[in-house]
Amino acid sequence: MALLRSYAGGHWHTAPDEGVPLRDAVTGEEVARISSAGVDMAAALDYGRRTGVSALRELTFHQRAALLKALASNLREHRDELYALSARTGATLGDSKFDVDGGIGVLFSYASKGKRELPNDTVYIDGDVEPLSKGGTFVGQHIATPLRGVAVQINAFNFPVWGPLEKFAPAFLAGVPSLVKPGSQTAYLTARLAELIVESGILPEGALQLVCGSAGDLLDHVTGQDLVSFTGSASTAQKLRAHPAIVRNAVRFNAEADSLNCSILGADATPGTAEFDLFVKQLVTEMTVKAGQKCTAIRRAFVPAGLLDEVAEATSARLSKVTVGNPASEGVRMGALASLEQREEVRRSLKALLSAGSVVFGDPEKVEVVDADAERGAFISPVLLKGDPERAEPHEVEAFGPVSTLLPYTSTDQVIAYAARGEGSLAGSIVTGDPEFAREVVLGAAPWHGRLLVLDADDAKESTGHGSPLPQLVHGGPGRAGGGEELGGLRGVLHHMQRTAVQASPKVLSAVTGRWMAGTPRAEGVHPFRKSLAELKIGDSVTAGPRTVTREDVDRFAEFTGDTFYAHTDPEAAAANPLFGGIVAHGYLVVSFAAGLFVSPEPGPVLANYGLENLRFLTPVKPGDELTVTLTAKQITPRIDQDYGEVRWDTDVINQNGESVAKYDVLTLVAK
Amino acid sequence: MALLRSYAGGHWHTAPDEGVPLRDAVTGEEVARISSAGVDMAAALDYGRRTGVSALRELTFHQRAALLKALASNLREHRDELYALSARTGATLGDSKFDVDGGIGVLFSYASKGKRELPNDTVYIDGDVEPLSKGGTFVGQHIATPLRGVAVQINAFNFPVWGPLEKFAPAFLAGVPSLVKPGSQTAYLTARLAELIVESGILPEGALQLVCGSAGDLLDHVTGQDLVSFTGSASTAQKLRAHPAIVRNAVRFNAEADSLNCSILGADATPGTAEFDLFVKQLVTEMTVKAGQKCTAIRRAFVPAGLLDEVAEATSARLSKVTVGNPASEGVRMGALASLEQREEVRRSLKALLSAGSVVFGDPEKVEVVDADAERGAFISPVLLKGDPERAEPHEVEAFGPVSTLLPYTSTDQVIAYAARGEGSLAGSIVTGDPEFAREVVLGAAPWHGRLLVLDADDAKESTGHGSPLPQLVHGGPGRAGGGEELGGLRGVLHHMQRTAVQASPKVLSAVTGRWMAGTPRAEGVHPFRKSLAELKIGDSVTAGPRTVTREDVDRFAEFTGDTFYAHTDPEAAAANPLFGGIVAHGYLVVSFAAGLFVSPEPGPVLANYGLENLRFLTPVKPGDELTVTLTAKQITPRIDQDYGEVRWDTDVINQNGESVAKYDVLTLVAK
Repeated sequence: MALLRSYAGGHWHTAPDEGVPLRDAVTGEEVARISSAGVDMAAALDYGRRTGVSALRELTFHQRAALLKALASNLREHRDELYALSARTGATLGDSKFDVDGGIGVLFSYASKGKRELPNDTVYIDGDVEPLSKGGTFVGQHIATPLRGVAVQINAFNFPVWGPLEKFAPAFLAGVPSLVKPGSQTAYLTARLAELIVESGILPEGALQLVCGSAGDLLDHVTGQDLVSFTGSASTAQKLRAHPAIVRNAVRFNAEADSLNCSILGADATPGTAEFDLFVKQLVTEMTVKAGQKCTAIRRAFVPAGLLDEVAEATSARLSKVTVGNPASEGVRMGALASLEQREEVRRSLKALLSAGSVVFGDPEKVEVVDADAERGAFISPVLLKGDPERAEPHEVEAFGPVSTLLPYTSTDQVIAYAARGEGSLAGSIVTGDPEFAREVVLGAAPWHGRLLVLDADDAKESTGHGSPLPQLVHGGPGRAGGGEELGGLRGVLHHMQRTAVQASPKVLSAVTGRWMAGTPRAEGVHPFRKSLAELKIGDSVTAGPRTVTREDVDRFAEFTGDTFYAHTDPEAAAANPLFGGIVAHGYLVVSFAAGLFVSPEPGPVLANYGLENLRFLTPVKPGDELTVTLTAKQITPRIDQDYGEVRWDTDVINQNGESVAKYDVLTLVAK
Repeated sequence: MALLRSYAGGHWHTAPDEGVPLRDAVTGEEVARISSAGVDMAAALDYGRRTGVSALRELTFHQRAALLKALASNLREHRDELYALSARTGATLGDSKFDVDGGIGVLFSYASKGKRELPNDTVYIDGDVEPLSKGGTFVGQHIATPLRGVAVQINAFNFPVWGPLEKFAPAFLAGVPSLVKPGSQTAYLTARLAELIVESGILPEGALQLVCGSAGDLLDHVTGQDLVSFTGSASTAQKLRAHPAIVRNAVRFNAEADSLNCSILGADATPGTAEFDLFVKQLVTEMTVKAGQKCTAIRRAFVPAGLLDEVAEATSARLSKVTVGNPASEGVRMGALASLEQREEVRRSLKALLSAGSVVFGDPEKVEVVDADAERGAFISPVLLKGDPERAEPHEVEAFGPVSTLLPYTSTDQVIAYAARGEGSLAGSIVTGDPEFAREVVLGAAPWHGRLLVLDADDAKESTGHGSPLPQLVHGGPGRAGGGEELGGLRGVLHHMQRTAVQASPKVLSAVTGRWMAGTPRAEGVHPFRKSLAELKIGDSVTAGPRTVTREDVDRFAEFTGDTFYAHTDPEAAAANPLFGGIVAHGYLVVSFAAGLFVSPEPGPVLANYGLENLRFLTPVKPGDELTVTLTAKQITPRIDQDYGEVRWDTDVINQNGESVAKYDVLTLVAK
């Protein structure tokens, strides 16, 4: 591997200059060189907006999800190669799995979410139909459509695989092409990842571009349809946020910045409790995984003042067992920082922290290492500090390495206030066996946090830990943490789409959204249960009835099912009910009779009724009432990997006065 | 009314200087003077963060909603006074109603949404529980809590009542205090509105502050917990977005900027069609309401090239009937611009537009007025232009007055591309009787629009029109329109809250959210249907069964209800069903039997089952299977204005193997 290549405009580019060397974090040897010279940034964006956008717009959410799954499976076959390169960044095998397997896991997760939670369509329907008029001829519906630009993704050096993939997956599922700029220090790993992706041939042309090296004038060319997302330092985030083109075009800008995340030990968690041990163990894990180079790592460890010494002792004892050294060697628990420059940076921050605290464990200047040269490699000892929480430094200075500070507190209100002094964090954790304490701290600290973990004996075995963002949950935090939000399942997808309120007649809105809505003309004729998925159209409908509900029906249903609730069986008691004023039919009787009316019994394409949604009983049904039901195909979702699909049916049961007595959606599986 | 007062820190302030005169738009007389000198902005923010935040945190969403409703009712009593002041801004009575009644309408709408769509609690539960582990001991739930800061609201001059209220209502419902800075030119109206609000005594102390005059150093003091929302010009939006404190603290910044909104006439809408007339009528309305001083007004009117002359003629004819003059006078359809400065600004923009077009109707320099002095008042004629859509000016230059440009197009793709050249709009409209054309244009133009209206003969009578933002629908647009989003029902509320992913054991998450979730221990004992709303606690539960489902039951249910679907009645056909492989019980039978098991029949606090949600049939029930049901109180929502509340019950029906056969939520009303 010599000069890293960029992939832009559908081609691999090699810079015409010599580039800048990138060094092995462990040995100091040159791994590769990097330069983006010669890449035409404006052309790359334009290519993404044309070729990438066009290709992605052709695909439904389900098709994109299937490609993500195929890509994830493909990359999984290349894990060993990625682990090997990852070791050169200073990562242990555990660290590498966190990065590589974590990134592939995000692809799988979005593939699954896309299939289960999105329609097999290109438009996302956001929220309910909004009635805007009395007569019902004018209604509103929010939709989301992909932005017609490029998602520019500026990544940090610390997660060269997970970082790019966690930004790429939601963008791709949304239908927005990505332009990935890795953090230079570890860009050789991201570059190899991009090569594997391009070589796989799985993605449509234009869906992914890569710029290794400086971003050059890239941001000068972003428009209001592009997005910029950034992970890295707070100072760079600020610079990018105020970039003239971003400001001028109101470009969606998302930042995840390193933050001073906290972990809080409850006063109940005294030595000997499971939670005491969990707190210490988690703190050591967060300090040492990736040598503490995680934007979510614990920087501030708040402990009840009376427990400070015990926590210091237990944590030190555990830290003393962490072997530092060549990550390729047996028994090594913590590798190197990403570069010598990073080590200098950490040492500088440690000096500032030490002005308001003291060392409990470790020597910032010295560390014993296994199978490596402690000076030529970017090694540093884990360093545990003890600090004064009334001072500013522990809440403001971040040493981006294996460094945490123990801070004492004396009351719940106080520790909530201390947590807030971080002025915005990506993640926090509360370790306690006391749900009331957990509740108070979670609700008190939530406005300053993107994610909060409560660790206790109940969830410890299955917990994914303080420092792990998950694709299902939002990742990001307010204020110092950048004010951004990524992942969070569909939330991260919608971030790449424009929400538009569409106002129209129901008929036009049904045409726009592909989902039938009340007020749109229905098509009666052949019973819709006799139509295959391919034949069925939204609006296909059947009306059946009337059927009179008799007092005998109600009695019989009560006796049969055992549901003898007084409103169905006791005329006097029912008359006293403030809502009914007399015997009413069971709601379950109403929906059962409705099914009896609308069903087409012979074998046919309808395979099963797998559920019901949003059922509301709107008017009581009294003996003598006549029920008529109308069933209308509302949404049709073919499954790309099955020989059937889902059909959602709008169901409206009315009485002899034309009043709706029950409305709901019936969910069925229908053969193609 | 002399010097306008500010309301900050719980007191009314009068500036120590003389202030700047604000003039009547019609007569040029001085209406009031304005100055914010002497207001301590940092102290005002601090006061809001302490007093306002504390007071609002005490209230549930329903309590806040009730206050909004009371406030709306109170303000409604003062409409005439507000209309009278509004006339001095140049507004006709119709314009004033648009502003005043529209603003009060937003309060009512949020009051209603808060009550219907939010819990009677202080925490918002966002989305579903996310399973994070196989064993179910570790789960995730997103919650939203109010930011602990102040919503700084910088309003435009054109809607002195609606503008402040549409920003205030969602902030208040979220639990975030507001600091309102009106646009100076019409601040006397907003100041009177604020006086009425303060005098009403309805809002808790600190919930609303007002700064009349310059914002001074206000923005220097915003933190990551504050929000800034702005309505006004694109250039000011850019300045604010790049403000050092906003950038440094990643302050949530929302902008609505004037945009070059379009209206598109379909080729089907030839003269003589309803849609042709609707297009012309709407265009004239949008040009003349508020004298065209609406950020949503139509600036670009795209018409099929072949219809340009007819549209020009019909629009001119209609415009010629618009009487301009003193808005207080009988028969006046269009009043004055807000100030002479605004008129100069409009004339300047018109010059730029005329470099790429020509006048169809009106004279930018001359207008006949009724009952007023055309020069002393800020009067201007409606001006209709004809332009070249290939030039930049029509897509970039906005004359913020009664000015629109007709632009020809020749194909659907072309008009979509032209619409996008506005580079982001608040609103657009498509006037057509052709649903397919509507669909193509909506989906094509949506990425550039916050709102799109399709106007046709079906919805015209009930349509609220191109230019009217509605509280239920998002207001805002990408790019040039500011990249912001306001209103949209709960979306605007959540904008003021921090979303936090909470990871914990189900037990702890239930304690945090106040909503029971599966995996949390249940409390069995007294049947929960025997407990009043006050006695009931989440987790209260009853388990009942087993009941064996026999083949006779299935036959009897089929015969009784008429639901003779083959999977329940025909063994051979059922055996061929790929999902069942034999006779299965009706899903409706399963839920009916479940109700028979869990119900407590005697009269008691449970009044009614009003619905069912998220019902899924998970495992087929075959003859011989034994059903057991567990019902657990999941969420309890007392109604503050009723003697009952809502209880949502988690319902899990299992078979003899412990497999869930059906899961759903039962919704009941329970007496207090």
